Amino acid sequence: MSDLQRLSFSIEAPLLERLGGLVARHGYQNRSEFLRDLIRSRLVEEEWKQDEEALGTVTLIFDHHARGLSDKLNHLQHHHHQQVLAATHVHLDAHLCAEVILIRGRASAIESLTDEMRRLKGVLHAALSLGSTGQGIR
Amino acid sequence: MSDLQRLSFSIEAPLLERLGGLVARHGYQNRSEFLRDLIRSRLVEEEWKQDEEALGTVTLIFDHHARGLSDKLNHLQHHHHQQVLAATHVHLDAHLCAEVILIRGRASAIESLTDEMRRLKGVLHAALSLGSTGQGIR
Amino acid sequence: MSDLQRLSFSIEAPLLERLGGLVARHGYQNRSEFLRDLIRSRLVEEEWKQDEEALGTVTLIFDHHARGLSDKLNHLQHHHHQQVLAATHVHLDAHLCAEVILIRGRASAIESLTDEMRRLKGVLHAALSLGSTGQGIR
Amino acid sequence: MSDLQRLSFSIEAPLLERLGGLVARHGYQNRSEFLRDLIRSRLVEEEWKQDEEALGTVTLIFDHHARGLSDKLNHLQHHHHQQVLAATHVHLDAHLCAEVILIRGRASAIESLTDEMRRLKGVLHAALSLGSTGQGIR
Repeated sequence: MSDLQRLSFSIEAPLLERLGGLVARHGYQNRSEFLRDLIRSRLVEEEWKQDEEALGTVTLIFDHHARGLSDKLNHLQHHHHQQVLAATHVHLDAHLCAEVILIRGRASAIESLTDEMRRLKGVLHAALSLGSTGQGIR
Repeated sequence: MSDLQRLSFSIEAPLLERLGGLVARHGYQNRSEFLRDLIRSRLVEEEWKQDEEALGTVTLIFDHHARGLSDKLNHLQHHHHQQVLAATHVHLDAHLCAEVILIRGRASAIESLTDEMRRLKGVLHAALSLGSTGQGIR
Repeated sequence: MSDLQRLSFSIEAPLLERLGGLVARHGYQNRSEFLRDLIRSRLVEEEWKQDEEALGTVTLIFDHHARGLSDKLNHLQHHHHQQVLAATHVHLDAHLCAEVILIRGRASAIESLTDEMRRLKGVLHAALSLGSTGQGIR
Repeated sequence: MSDLQRLSFSIEAPLLERLGGLVARHGYQNRSEFLRDLIRSRLVEEEWKQDEEALGTVTLIFDHHARGLSDKLNHLQHHHHQQVLAATHVHLDAHLCAEVILIRGRASAIESLTDEMRRLKGVLHAALSLGSTGQGIR
């Protein structure tokens, strides 16, 4: 962890009270941690808007009986092996699988790779979450 | 404006620097105003999640030649006259109109009224923005 | 309205049934209108991603006692009079105002103008909704 | 895969052409697959709104030097072992880790568990993506 500094800012009394309410409702132990989380979330939004290097997580739901789908997904991930950090596969029931793929790269490249996977026949849903490599928020 | 208080919190040195970058890039004059805006935005998100009283703005795009559409929109707004604060109409071209409707009410009621307008024949698009009545953020 | 064509596509039986459920729950009279709405919403998302000409609606909440704020908002809108189509002002209570501003322009320009208004001292919240000029969805 | 049916609906000629543009730009081989994806995405949105059983993926970024953090994360996941389907850990650099956790449960329970992890000291960011168990979209 880096050295901690103190930052002080002015805030209207009622807003300060509402901030306390938010901190409590979400179970934070103190306002500092809550405020740092707010700032870091804002920074991550910015990384995605500015198309900087980011970490995306794609969650695919698919029917593993779809012909050739596992091979295609595998092939696609190998083709992008420098971006794909890890993939985890879960069997949801006799037919359905979930596969979670962690991708590092520019935001636009992550979105385009997600598109490639989403449109494969047999893929029912692809959810993408926009995360950070951590470089820009520590 | 209410009385201003000072709030101080601890923050890692590099994160403090990145915060300065955000403040500058978005043209804020100081960090206080930026931080207050972050907190207020978070509070407004919460108001919508908790289905509290909120202020929604619906922007409709429609073809004013669609038979009976203006009457239906008018009727619908009058039926909800206690929620509808104002409506502004703009002529975009020979066919298309934009109508912006400001609605005060519980988030779920605003969403349901937006649904009602969106599904009218001739309405091409309905965009809803999630705002605040201001009561919970001052 | 333009000429209507018929488009037919293949869909799994259970998905077709679920589509029927969505159509009913949101009060649409038929699936055609629901599907056209889905397609148009997707097109509007794309307009914003591609930074094409769009229609944005900004809803500001502010304290009209904030010194010089009304003048600054007025000045800013006049400075962008080619983009600002209309502005509607509503008095929420003795202190708070809502102002809804309809802006036509490239998505990035709309976001930047929203930023300019959001950071003015006295503005408590600025909500932006991402709409369409209607050109790309009819 | 289930039996396929044909669904036909009416659509304005220019909108049909724009649909073709979307399909091509996103690399889909035909409109059927694109339209089914649109419908399934809409269904997943609805599952989250209605707080039905869903599949959430949380991506945490954290500093593994933060005292006791790995234990706390581990403990938390075990406490919710009926919901947590899998967790994958990736070492981003000498300090930073990413952990991707796949959670099955009601949307509100997933969000609350995400909150619990996000607020742990040392967690820099928690991104949540809203996916489906696949039950409601096949």
